Amino acid sequence: MAVGLGPLSTLHPVPGFELGIASAGIKRPGRKDVVVMRCAEGSSVAGVFTLNAFCAAPVIIARQRFAGPVRYLLTNTGNANAGTGQPGLAAAERTTKTLATLASVGEEAVLPFSTGVIGEPLPVEKIEAALPAALADLAEDNWAAAATGIMTTDTLPKGASRQFQVDGTTVTVTGISKGAGMIKPNMATMLGYVATDAKVARGLLQDLLADAANRSFNRITIDGDTSTNDCCMLVATGQAAVAEIAQPSGAAFEQLREAVFAVFAELAQAIVRDGEGATKFVTVQVNGGGNAQECLDVGYAVAHSPLIKTALFASDPNWGRILAAVGRAGVPQLDVSLIDVFLGGVQICQQGGRAATYTEEQGARVMAQAEIEIRIELGRGSHSETIWTTDLSHDYVKINAEYRT
Amino acid sequence: MAVGLGPLSTLHPVPGFELGIASAGIKRPGRKDVVVMRCAEGSSVAGVFTLNAFCAAPVIIARQRFAGPVRYLLTNTGNANAGTGQPGLAAAERTTKTLATLASVGEEAVLPFSTGVIGEPLPVEKIEAALPAALADLAEDNWAAAATGIMTTDTLPKGASRQFQVDGTTVTVTGISKGAGMIKPNMATMLGYVATDAKVARGLLQDLLADAANRSFNRITIDGDTSTNDCCMLVATGQAAVAEIAQPSGAAFEQLREAVFAVFAELAQAIVRDGEGATKFVTVQVNGGGNAQECLDVGYAVAHSPLIKTALFASDPNWGRILAAVGRAGVPQLDVSLIDVFLGGVQICQQGGRAATYTEEQGARVMAQAEIEIRIELGRGSHSETIWTTDLSHDYVKINAEYRT
Repeated sequence: MAVGLGPLSTLHPVPGFELGIASAGIKRPGRKDVVVMRCAEGSSVAGVFTLNAFCAAPVIIARQRFAGPVRYLLTNTGNANAGTGQPGLAAAERTTKTLATLASVGEEAVLPFSTGVIGEPLPVEKIEAALPAALADLAEDNWAAAATGIMTTDTLPKGASRQFQVDGTTVTVTGISKGAGMIKPNMATMLGYVATDAKVARGLLQDLLADAANRSFNRITIDGDTSTNDCCMLVATGQAAVAEIAQPSGAAFEQLREAVFAVFAELAQAIVRDGEGATKFVTVQVNGGGNAQECLDVGYAVAHSPLIKTALFASDPNWGRILAAVGRAGVPQLDVSLIDVFLGGVQICQQGGRAATYTEEQGARVMAQAEIEIRIELGRGSHSETIWTTDLSHDYVKINAEYRT
Repeated sequence: MAVGLGPLSTLHPVPGFELGIASAGIKRPGRKDVVVMRCAEGSSVAGVFTLNAFCAAPVIIARQRFAGPVRYLLTNTGNANAGTGQPGLAAAERTTKTLATLASVGEEAVLPFSTGVIGEPLPVEKIEAALPAALADLAEDNWAAAATGIMTTDTLPKGASRQFQVDGTTVTVTGISKGAGMIKPNMATMLGYVATDAKVARGLLQDLLADAANRSFNRITIDGDTSTNDCCMLVATGQAAVAEIAQPSGAAFEQLREAVFAVFAELAQAIVRDGEGATKFVTVQVNGGGNAQECLDVGYAVAHSPLIKTALFASDPNWGRILAAVGRAGVPQLDVSLIDVFLGGVQICQQGGRAATYTEEQGARVMAQAEIEIRIELGRGSHSETIWTTDLSHDYVKINAEYRT
């Protein structure tokens, strides 16, 4: 049950970026589970990868290769190829080699991505067998099918698209993402692919990606569990007839940044809206911090608290649990008498105690909504951070207790 | 459904320490919800308190007073008197003043303790009205009734008792605890009271308490939420006819320490066994760490992971989730190729990958048990830490979604 997430909106094709989908039957026969993406020659490719020390074999390989000339991104679902040791590396390499041979490019130009169950051997032959069909399916208008092809426990495909004009020429930014559980990205989300036909210098593209991921995928959490397979790629094909963007300034760069940030925010929030068992979309806004880190510490303490998340599920304005989470966030010398807390527009806590004007009815009214903002004013400085999360429902337990059955 | 926790075993009376129980009807009419404990004159009293910055009013007062001569401990359930600001402090003070007057002692000799819903005003009159009955009920053989009187969402009372001989004289250590949710103590548990009739110098008693709490209550977690009200008190009445223990050495001290550690471990583990919705009692053993902190970081990453906890609930040996949690624990320069993981006696992960000998059947057999050990060998050094936790079940969500209804 996704919160405020409808069918895919229009995903504009990106000239120079094609997507092909096929079925390898990795987890279930007939399921679309292999996606190949082709970048036009000369594309700039940027990437951010999980910081989990137990990163998956494909992450290790993609991270080694992404700085070179990249032509193909190969994604499979149903198997994460993580915790698979040396055989897992060999398996991932073999799939990229097969694709490289079929596509007549160097093996190093193919990046592998996997998502699914951890610890099972990658079914290499099944994936190899599906590659010809995926290549035959390559098309620029295939974003929606690819968004579905990368899903695992997602209930809805996730995509976003923006366009802007540079000197009368239309430039497009389109992306897709997947993920619904094991979500507390650290430098990237589960899997995200965003492409633009702008021409962007590679170093600048990498900086732009890091910045965008930091404001989007690195500010969401569903269960606090960072995946072994998180990757997010940003590709600039350079096919639009506009000048190369090489500096982080100027009108074209500003427009591109705005469009990229918008696409990333929409993709990241879509992951939360479709979070496993989610019945609420929750924005945790922390203001007045002495620095960004303490805002994040408070925000994540609230966003990860099982007690707050179950209260959100129950629509119970149990604001004492919010105070308790703020209090354990580890902020040094926290003066609780300066803290105000708001639930939606309702002040629930004033100077560290229950707000004089607060009534349980006001709190219950806000908590009954599907989209809820918890705003915490620390009164220590001028820093702010925003984190998006979900509630913790019966269905979260059900989904994760039954994941492999 | 408590895991491996039966009826209370014999709780030996501690000479010089009396307990009285009464009903104030704080949350439900007729429920025993007020417990008064009296320490003989001259008792040494040690305490450890929550590190949550939003600590409750009674914690603030108890922390101020416990270094002085203490005669009475006043506990109520049903209301935490937390997040209640200045009026909460005044309310807690008033209850201690009333008890002090009834008992003809100074107000400073009474320490208040509260547990229950956060953010509601303390019903002072109800508590005051119950004090004469609690005082009239004071008796040394009242531990079992007190263990029941301090329960909130606990399904079973928790107590432990040990005795040892010093020069032919029997010395007793007896304690009780409560807590089932919002459990990730930091310096103390929800509420724990342990008394001995040994005579112990106050500074030594405080050191002993800190050490014991650190090895017990500070190594358990149910949901990672640190309470606003955690307190643990250790009282030495000095009524046993043995010499004062003033140094952390010698046979009497060693015996006392062993008995205190045993009582604390049993009380702390009882809290986990009775964890909200718990169907599994899980020991997370981390060995081979370069220092204690990294062992704890890995242990808590595993113990707090909702994905591992739901897999434990489902008896699913989804060991990939364990690797993922180890990998995100933030251990610097973690070499995953040195890591071994065992589930019960079964090696599931060898040198960072699936163990060659591992079969799903072996894992399933361990996971079906009610008591499970997850052992992680980091291969970095000689430090070890042990953490006890629970699974995450449908009932945890149910209990916490419906807590206030």
